[in-house]
Amino acid sequence: MSHHATQLDRAFHALSDPTRRAVVSRLVEGEAPVSILAEPFDMTLPSFAQHIRVLEECGLIVSEKRGRSRWCRLVEEHFEQAADWMQAERRRWNGRMDRLEVYLDKAERDAE
Amino acid sequence: MSHHATQLDRAFHALSDPTRRAVVSRLVEGEAPVSILAEPFDMTLPSFAQHIRVLEECGLIVSEKRGRSRWCRLVEEHFEQAADWMQAERRRWNGRMDRLEVYLDKAERDAE
Repeated sequence: MSHHATQLDRAFHALSDPTRRAVVSRLVEGEAPVSILAEPFDMTLPSFAQHIRVLEECGLIVSEKRGRSRWCRLVEEHFEQAADWMQAERRRWNGRMDRLEVYLDKAERDAE
Repeated sequence: MSHHATQLDRAFHALSDPTRRAVVSRLVEGEAPVSILAEPFDMTLPSFAQHIRVLEECGLIVSEKRGRSRWCRLVEEHFEQAADWMQAERRRWNGRMDRLEVYLDKAERDAE
């Protein structure tokens, strides 16, 4: 990611990997230690830690050390920002499809 | 993007850049030629064409030559797939927040 990347750029970059999406999906349920987050994945802990690092750099999660564990949680604001963008575009798309349908229905009736 | 990237990986990668998001946003309104899509951007046509190429490789758009223009349109299915993922996670997040609120309200009442 370039240094000029916006928060939204970084959030979508974070989500462009299946392991990172699975971690986000797990953190939606609540905070968790890295060791627990890593469990479902067939990869070395350093490889997994790299994904956690990307998620943190992208601002989608934060982590903090508690005793011997590092706990992660989702940064709601940054997740919501990406979700808002998708939702707004989908609404515009659906709006256009609805208008197109009304137009085609009318054209069909006019042709009859 | 790795060769093993899934469609969802590629869609989110495509969206991790502001120019590409703006193109997607424009194509939500309907298909358009590359020359028109490029107009709002202060970049060379080859640089812009590179973004179009990434969007195509990621499966978010398709393009076809018509006369002297290359027209682009959004691939609804692939856009929806990414939007569905975000929406499902957001719903789960909101569900958890609602349950948490109910729990905290109850705890507060019990303490009174």
